[in-house]
Amino acid sequence: MLGIDPGTANTGYGVVQNEGSRLIALDGGVIATKSDVEPEIRLVTIFDRLVELFDEYRPEVLAIEDLYFGANVRSAFAVGQSRGVALLAAGQRGTPCHSYTPQQIKSAVCGSGNADKDQVQRMVAQLLGLDSPPKPDHAADALAVAICEINRAPYAQAVNRGLAAAIAKATAA
Amino acid sequence: MLGIDPGTANTGYGVVQNEGSRLIALDGGVIATKSDVEPEIRLVTIFDRLVELFDEYRPEVLAIEDLYFGANVRSAFAVGQSRGVALLAAGQRGTPCHSYTPQQIKSAVCGSGNADKDQVQRMVAQLLGLDSPPKPDHAADALAVAICEINRAPYAQAVNRGLAAAIAKATAA
Repeated sequence: MLGIDPGTANTGYGVVQNEGSRLIALDGGVIATKSDVEPEIRLVTIFDRLVELFDEYRPEVLAIEDLYFGANVRSAFAVGQSRGVALLAAGQRGTPCHSYTPQQIKSAVCGSGNADKDQVQRMVAQLLGLDSPPKPDHAADALAVAICEINRAPYAQAVNRGLAAAIAKATAA
Repeated sequence: MLGIDPGTANTGYGVVQNEGSRLIALDGGVIATKSDVEPEIRLVTIFDRLVELFDEYRPEVLAIEDLYFGANVRSAFAVGQSRGVALLAAGQRGTPCHSYTPQQIKSAVCGSGNADKDQVQRMVAQLLGLDSPPKPDHAADALAVAICEINRAPYAQAVNRGLAAAIAKATAA
C-alpha cells in the first residue's frame, strides 16, 4: 500500500504492509523540491521518485489525500498539479487510486474526523509499532493515508458482505 | 509553439509557427476524456497525446493557461491535475513553460483583457488566416495561448532592449 500526501514543496509518501493483524511501515519520507526551481522541473522530480517507489514496492493501490476542506484556490491548483503526476504514475501501471479527505483519514486512524495533528501522528506510530511519531510531518501524513486505506478496506468488505447477505435473503424470500 | 488549455474532460492544444510576420496553425484540437473513466486513466490519455505532440512538433516553449480569476477550489484542483501532467511532459524534455492568465491571453490577442469569447475566436482566425474560427472552443483557446506567447515574446524582447539601453545610458553617465 502506497500512501501519498501530495504537494509541490513537499510530497509525503509512506509504504505500509498488512501482515495478518499487524501493520508494518516499509518506507516513508518526503520528496522535497526547491521553490527557486521551475514548476515543470519540480514535477519531474516528484514523478521520477514516485516511479521508483512504484517499481520497488509494486503497491496494489495508491491511496492519496484529496482536497482538504477550506483550501484556497491557489493552493488547490498547486496541489492538483502534484497530485496529477502521482495519479499519472499509478495510471500508467494500472494501479487503482483511492482518494481520502483529511477528515476521512483522521477518522480511520483515530476514530474521529476532528483529531488533531499530534493525535494522528501518535496513532500512526502506535499502529505501526514505532517508538516515536514518524518525521517529517508529511511522511507521517502519507503513512496515515496508507493506514486509512487498509483500515477502511475490511470495513468496505464487511459492508459488501452485508449487502450480499441482504440481497441473498431478499432473493430467497 | 505549443499552446495548451488544460482540463480534465477537454484539454485543448494548438501548434502555431511564426514565419516572418505570418502566423501559421500547424495543428489544433482537443484531447477529450470521458467522465465515467477513472481520473488516473484520463490523465494517462492526456499525457500520452501530449507526448505525441511534443515528439511530432518539438516546440521550443510550452505556453499554458494559468488559473482563471474567479475559479472555484474544486475546479482549480481538477484543472491543476491536468496541468500537472502537461508540465511534466514539457519538463521531461527540458522545454520551458510559460503561463498566461486568460486576461493576458485576451490582451495579447485582442488588445483588451476584457474581450469576449467570440472576439478572441475571430481574432485567432484572422491572425492565423483561417476562414472561420477554429472549433471546438478549447482548440481555439489553446491556439490563442500559443499566439499570446508569440505576440508577447517580441514585446518582452523590446522591454529588455529598452532596459539594456537605459542601463547603458545610466552607466555611461
